[in-house]
Amino acid sequence: MEFGIRNLGECRHISPLLEKFLSPKSVFVSDSRKVLYNPEFDGGHSPAIDFTHSFELAGPREKIYFDPARVNCGIVTCGGLCPGLNDVIRSIVMQSYYRYGVRSITGIRYGYNGLNPNKAIEPVMLTPQLVRNIHTMGGTMLGSSRGGTEDIGLLVDTLEKWKINILYTIGGDGTLRGAKEIAEVARKRGLDLAVVGIPKTIDNDISFIDRSFGYQTAVAEAVHSIYAAHVEAEGAPNGIGLVKLMGRYSGFIAASTTLAMNDVNFCLIPEVPLKLDAFFSALEDRILRRGHAVICAAEGVGQDLLDNTSNKAARDASNNVVFKDIGVFLKTKINEYFDKKGIEINLKYIDPSYIIRSAPSCPMDAIFCAQLGQYAVHAGMAGKTDIVIGRWNNMFTHVPIELAISQRKFVDINSLFWNNVIEATGQPVSWDTDLTR
Amino acid sequence: MEFGIRNLGECRHISPLLEKFLSPKSVFVSDSRKVLYNPEFDGGHSPAIDFTHSFELAGPREKIYFDPARVNCGIVTCGGLCPGLNDVIRSIVMQSYYRYGVRSITGIRYGYNGLNPNKAIEPVMLTPQLVRNIHTMGGTMLGSSRGGTEDIGLLVDTLEKWKINILYTIGGDGTLRGAKEIAEVARKRGLDLAVVGIPKTIDNDISFIDRSFGYQTAVAEAVHSIYAAHVEAEGAPNGIGLVKLMGRYSGFIAASTTLAMNDVNFCLIPEVPLKLDAFFSALEDRILRRGHAVICAAEGVGQDLLDNTSNKAARDASNNVVFKDIGVFLKTKINEYFDKKGIEINLKYIDPSYIIRSAPSCPMDAIFCAQLGQYAVHAGMAGKTDIVIGRWNNMFTHVPIELAISQRKFVDINSLFWNNVIEATGQPVSWDTDLTR
Amino acid sequence: MEFGIRNLGECRHISPLLEKFLSPKSVFVSDSRKVLYNPEFDGGHSPAIDFTHSFELAGPREKIYFDPARVNCGIVTCGGLCPGLNDVIRSIVMQSYYRYGVRSITGIRYGYNGLNPNKAIEPVMLTPQLVRNIHTMGGTMLGSSRGGTEDIGLLVDTLEKWKINILYTIGGDGTLRGAKEIAEVARKRGLDLAVVGIPKTIDNDISFIDRSFGYQTAVAEAVHSIYAAHVEAEGAPNGIGLVKLMGRYSGFIAASTTLAMNDVNFCLIPEVPLKLDAFFSALEDRILRRGHAVICAAEGVGQDLLDNTSNKAARDASNNVVFKDIGVFLKTKINEYFDKKGIEINLKYIDPSYIIRSAPSCPMDAIFCAQLGQYAVHAGMAGKTDIVIGRWNNMFTHVPIELAISQRKFVDINSLFWNNVIEATGQPVSWDTDLTR
Amino acid sequence: MEFGIRNLGECRHISPLLEKFLSPKSVFVSDSRKVLYNPEFDGGHSPAIDFTHSFELAGPREKIYFDPARVNCGIVTCGGLCPGLNDVIRSIVMQSYYRYGVRSITGIRYGYNGLNPNKAIEPVMLTPQLVRNIHTMGGTMLGSSRGGTEDIGLLVDTLEKWKINILYTIGGDGTLRGAKEIAEVARKRGLDLAVVGIPKTIDNDISFIDRSFGYQTAVAEAVHSIYAAHVEAEGAPNGIGLVKLMGRYSGFIAASTTLAMNDVNFCLIPEVPLKLDAFFSALEDRILRRGHAVICAAEGVGQDLLDNTSNKAARDASNNVVFKDIGVFLKTKINEYFDKKGIEINLKYIDPSYIIRSAPSCPMDAIFCAQLGQYAVHAGMAGKTDIVIGRWNNMFTHVPIELAISQRKFVDINSLFWNNVIEATGQPVSWDTDLTR
Repeated sequence: MEFGIRNLGECRHISPLLEKFLSPKSVFVSDSRKVLYNPEFDGGHSPAIDFTHSFELAGPREKIYFDPARVNCGIVTCGGLCPGLNDVIRSIVMQSYYRYGVRSITGIRYGYNGLNPNKAIEPVMLTPQLVRNIHTMGGTMLGSSRGGTEDIGLLVDTLEKWKINILYTIGGDGTLRGAKEIAEVARKRGLDLAVVGIPKTIDNDISFIDRSFGYQTAVAEAVHSIYAAHVEAEGAPNGIGLVKLMGRYSGFIAASTTLAMNDVNFCLIPEVPLKLDAFFSALEDRILRRGHAVICAAEGVGQDLLDNTSNKAARDASNNVVFKDIGVFLKTKINEYFDKKGIEINLKYIDPSYIIRSAPSCPMDAIFCAQLGQYAVHAGMAGKTDIVIGRWNNMFTHVPIELAISQRKFVDINSLFWNNVIEATGQPVSWDTDLTR
Repeated sequence: MEFGIRNLGECRHISPLLEKFLSPKSVFVSDSRKVLYNPEFDGGHSPAIDFTHSFELAGPREKIYFDPARVNCGIVTCGGLCPGLNDVIRSIVMQSYYRYGVRSITGIRYGYNGLNPNKAIEPVMLTPQLVRNIHTMGGTMLGSSRGGTEDIGLLVDTLEKWKINILYTIGGDGTLRGAKEIAEVARKRGLDLAVVGIPKTIDNDISFIDRSFGYQTAVAEAVHSIYAAHVEAEGAPNGIGLVKLMGRYSGFIAASTTLAMNDVNFCLIPEVPLKLDAFFSALEDRILRRGHAVICAAEGVGQDLLDNTSNKAARDASNNVVFKDIGVFLKTKINEYFDKKGIEINLKYIDPSYIIRSAPSCPMDAIFCAQLGQYAVHAGMAGKTDIVIGRWNNMFTHVPIELAISQRKFVDINSLFWNNVIEATGQPVSWDTDLTR
Repeated sequence: MEFGIRNLGECRHISPLLEKFLSPKSVFVSDSRKVLYNPEFDGGHSPAIDFTHSFELAGPREKIYFDPARVNCGIVTCGGLCPGLNDVIRSIVMQSYYRYGVRSITGIRYGYNGLNPNKAIEPVMLTPQLVRNIHTMGGTMLGSSRGGTEDIGLLVDTLEKWKINILYTIGGDGTLRGAKEIAEVARKRGLDLAVVGIPKTIDNDISFIDRSFGYQTAVAEAVHSIYAAHVEAEGAPNGIGLVKLMGRYSGFIAASTTLAMNDVNFCLIPEVPLKLDAFFSALEDRILRRGHAVICAAEGVGQDLLDNTSNKAARDASNNVVFKDIGVFLKTKINEYFDKKGIEINLKYIDPSYIIRSAPSCPMDAIFCAQLGQYAVHAGMAGKTDIVIGRWNNMFTHVPIELAISQRKFVDINSLFWNNVIEATGQPVSWDTDLTR
Repeated sequence: MEFGIRNLGECRHISPLLEKFLSPKSVFVSDSRKVLYNPEFDGGHSPAIDFTHSFELAGPREKIYFDPARVNCGIVTCGGLCPGLNDVIRSIVMQSYYRYGVRSITGIRYGYNGLNPNKAIEPVMLTPQLVRNIHTMGGTMLGSSRGGTEDIGLLVDTLEKWKINILYTIGGDGTLRGAKEIAEVARKRGLDLAVVGIPKTIDNDISFIDRSFGYQTAVAEAVHSIYAAHVEAEGAPNGIGLVKLMGRYSGFIAASTTLAMNDVNFCLIPEVPLKLDAFFSALEDRILRRGHAVICAAEGVGQDLLDNTSNKAARDASNNVVFKDIGVFLKTKINEYFDKKGIEINLKYIDPSYIIRSAPSCPMDAIFCAQLGQYAVHAGMAGKTDIVIGRWNNMFTHVPIELAISQRKFVDINSLFWNNVIEATGQPVSWDTDLTR
């Protein structure tokens, strides 16, 4: 997999930041600065480090590609809501305007659809005045939408028409794939267009990136639902609180929320295949012993159980698989199970997804989003393209889009992290009865 | 309707509170002190006040009926969770123990079922130590359940066996009806049993009572969901945020939350009959004009629309009508409507009920619950029975159970209060197109 | 004391609200509708009600005094910050604009000083667009200041110059006194000026009014400081947490916060004279027995102890007595006391005043403020003057300014309410050792 | 500086964790596994990595030093409160008890003083039952105190008497220095005692460690005070909001809070020497231009300005320099400055320190604290001593105490991070007028 970064061309303009730093030399970053992909080694053997896998460091360049006085920027937010979107938008605008002196920043509305001439969605010109307070609100002031990437050429037509030189795309997998295609079409057309992505995944499931924005806020919000489920479970005879949290392929939110609260008895994540028999049996055991139980299920768990008749999954406009509702499914099946057993239970099902994802960013995400926006602008002004802004070993990095979307990040079920969850819940290591000890 | 209060008998014991007050005379309340039911009058005509409708004031009596050293108390919480249950339990225990010197306080678990000998649910003896911190948690430490009133005699058997003299019942309509029956059976059996209710209705729909505990907390929690719905609605093209809030027969929570937030465009409550055609037409108009909308629906609205085939409604164990889910219904129907019209919308449905009702009490409810518990103990120790503790014109009162459950409190749709909601949302006055202006 | 209301003149204009209500007749309020000052009576004697003391009901009048198309309104906020100020401003603007059709609403900046021509503070024209979201922020968008009432004539000059017909003044004692003087000067000059006050006192100490806005929010915020004081006190050997809360003459915030939290051991309010010897002795006793203590002191307590040399108290620009800092005083004296005794303590002093008063309104205050603003506009448009909007027995009322400021509301230390505090803390009934039992 | 770790002796016991993991081999960590101190390199030159500076990885060892059935553990919390203390205590107890099967865990009360036989402070035996819910509360259930390290021998006497084999010390600089001395004395006496520190510094100023627990919670709490200061500043003519935050030598909390809020105009940290003239001049300029200002000052800033007469600073029982109150100093001096200039200002000073440090941990700190406790137990059971648990490049590490306390971590004022603060506030780069541009 390629870690190298594409540049639009030679950087000929002196950065206007030069005069803003106390010690500019120590702040500017050259393209040759890297951070190792893997800083861990075994000192017992002759230690060997793999230098071929490393990320280019992000940060301001002493010379930049675009002339701030002439460059036109565009910002687009795509896909589902995620805490921090407004923070990133605000940061890009403030950084571009006040530090680089950019005056033309176009806000593209409702995702890629806002670039589709057939949709005729008016863009909004972004100014510091307009974005000053948006970070105190959840959601995205630009609006968002799924899809819109069916005809990339059309989108590039609009970018060309609007003379956009730097496109900041904030979105997930599908969005980044679209961003990559836009960069490619632009290159073929010979356009002077840098495409810089800020990866958005509330699930925290992008590889080669320590942490994605909005994820910490999501965990902080999710604890309220686990609290409610716990209170409800204890408040009724054989009470069961069932919470569905985000996590399509990766259970980081469910696992972290479980660790943060210590009240969950069963944490179900996509990485651990769910066997209903084993799970129901463990649940019954818990109910009989303790009289209540709390279940925290990531939305992506048990998708194989939901429908085994059609072998082609539905997809939404972003080409994401449309997930069937594991929460409603589990609620129904658990009730059926105990009904059959003649055990009266009181199951309360909570689905807080929209409450979570529409929350304003927590302070740590607010800072992180502000930084992501700033590094994105440094990258864009330097003519970096086809990249996303990453974070690795607490440093901000440039990651090729292709690398970023090449594989997902999963919860390693052999890690101490997941083992902590197992210990916190007391649940079996696996639902595969052969493996369970 | 009768406003008079039944007493178990003559009060012969000097209240142990006598020596605890700085000026006891000014604190003790005699049975003859009343507060007018209706303090409003028209000064233009010869003013006339109706003295026959007034409430007995609650408060400590100088002489009490029960001997604190010998009295046995019981506490039971019934029905769905409501913020403040633990506060009331704690207050009854603390007040009984520390102010009256009562040493025997039985916590009956899981509602009236905890009194059913066939269920064999062990009670818990309540002490200050045990309840000291429960008010910081939502829910009820005793557990709750619906129903259990099928055979009142069985329940009274247990009360007799446990020698309970004062039964504090915290619950809604069905619970209070059960409490009344228990009081009657006890009277017939010649038992020395006072039954004192603390009315619990998160919907705030009990008549003859200003405000019920948990209601303010519910509104304070509900605003988070309206916030989320608003952010989601603005974040997508033709976004619609739909929130279902509590309110089976009365829309106080939905109406107050709407007033507190100013972001709702349609507030649907049971008191205003819902006509889908008129509503959808207004919704479409809003979407076409503004591109997004927020709907706040009380759970009891539109029940007539949900099913017109079966003319007998299902009932739960508390004999409450089982409501069909208007939220899911509206979500489906709205999507169908716009689908048929060829208008693409993005509807996000939020059901925060369990998160709301399991919240710990807000500070004002915490104080209110503490007072309700204290006044309940004053009433119980004085041998008042078949009553609930009420609040009227900012004074605490004794209200006969029969009166309290004789009629519901509704949002008056001719009031300024509801008119404020109409103005805040901009919605039509009525869905009946003949009445709408 | 006079309960009668002054009207500017005959109401000749049909209210534009007439066509907005479903049943206007049931919503409009005539001037003859009243609510009793005292709805309590003793049924044992021949009940007698005092009809001479009653409040005129607030609400929309069918005929109004001012022509909405020509009326000019002004809004001013004075004195210290209080949660809900922006809610009231917003409500007055929205109500005036959308319901009555008023188009001229002047926002006077920085209190009465904004009317002083010598200060040359530009006013701001208020529109729905400008105030739409201000209720989500604490503070006041108009700014506030103390004083400015030295020369009332100057202020009326400006009102005359700006052709203001209705002046909405939001402020406390001093502000209302100023409002009264403005109304009088205007009357003498024959100006068509209605002066309508919305009483602002976070201390909740205005008589003839159930509750003042911001007070519930203040209690809700204050609990965080008591929590912190409790944690600090338990976290150190002989830890003492000392919190100073608002309450210049009346201890409602301190008392209510104490009741809401149950962690306070000493609640000190101005209504109970503080004797240091008795207090320190009780505190020492608590420390020796339990190893920690929490003290909640209203700012107005013990002012007599602070300085007995100068017999003339300092006053600020609003002519309020400048309070000496009882918090710092107690911190010093307590440390000295235990130092002298050779007992090592760890005292942590918390002063959360600015954090509390700058908070956005809690949902219940948000609703209350919105209503206050609406009733103020009904009153102003009807030509009521020299009044404040009150609340009594859950109804909104008109109260003559003179009556409202004629006496303060205090915590009745012979009430059950204060007795509850005594019981919650375990502190002595009084610091006067002769009275203590 | 030495990165090597001291072990008490050979590990002969099979870890009881062996049978708890799905794939034990992938979870256990050998002593030879390391993480590089510096994973950054310059790819332009021949890249060279310094393997001599690396941290030993923390984690469970396959063989352990202590026999779980016989080992006696002790936990002590020292110094000021910090969010997460209870989380760490709980985690150590749960991990020791449930995963390693340890049954003897002594809670030492009130810091090192709890080990001083002369103080006669009874310890408390810790069990899962006792600590189950403590993580929901701020503070430390063990109590804390400063100092107590005057006679290390006495403390070791007690440890010896109580037969403690692993001492977990949670505290800051002074505490860790004490821990180091305890380890040394124990070694000289030939005791089988492992001393494992969990570094506690709300200021986040420990070197060789990415992040310290409680720091994120502190920032999350601090934003409320900045909010209040901002509202107060805007609410009065020439309003100035002044907030003092924690940060004795390092301004991380002040800087991060400034970045998270975007409302601060002057962020004053110890790393940037404060010159009053330059600062007041910039403040005056801001006030004249904008009419309000918000100042966020770390407690350690400007200490040189407070007192230049005595050249020996006072020290508290932990041998920390007692800081003079820069907040009160600035409040006084700013008022004096503007008074002299004849400019009327309204300065509101907020000191939220105790409210911040007594808060319960935020979810991310809750998880982090739980992990710190777990890794500490892994280390202790493996016989690691004289170390603290660190975190580096998102991995948990063993750091020699001596290294951890050898130097402080400061805000690098030449970094992008600090530059972001400069840009967010608009303040000068430096108060040294020669350097300012």
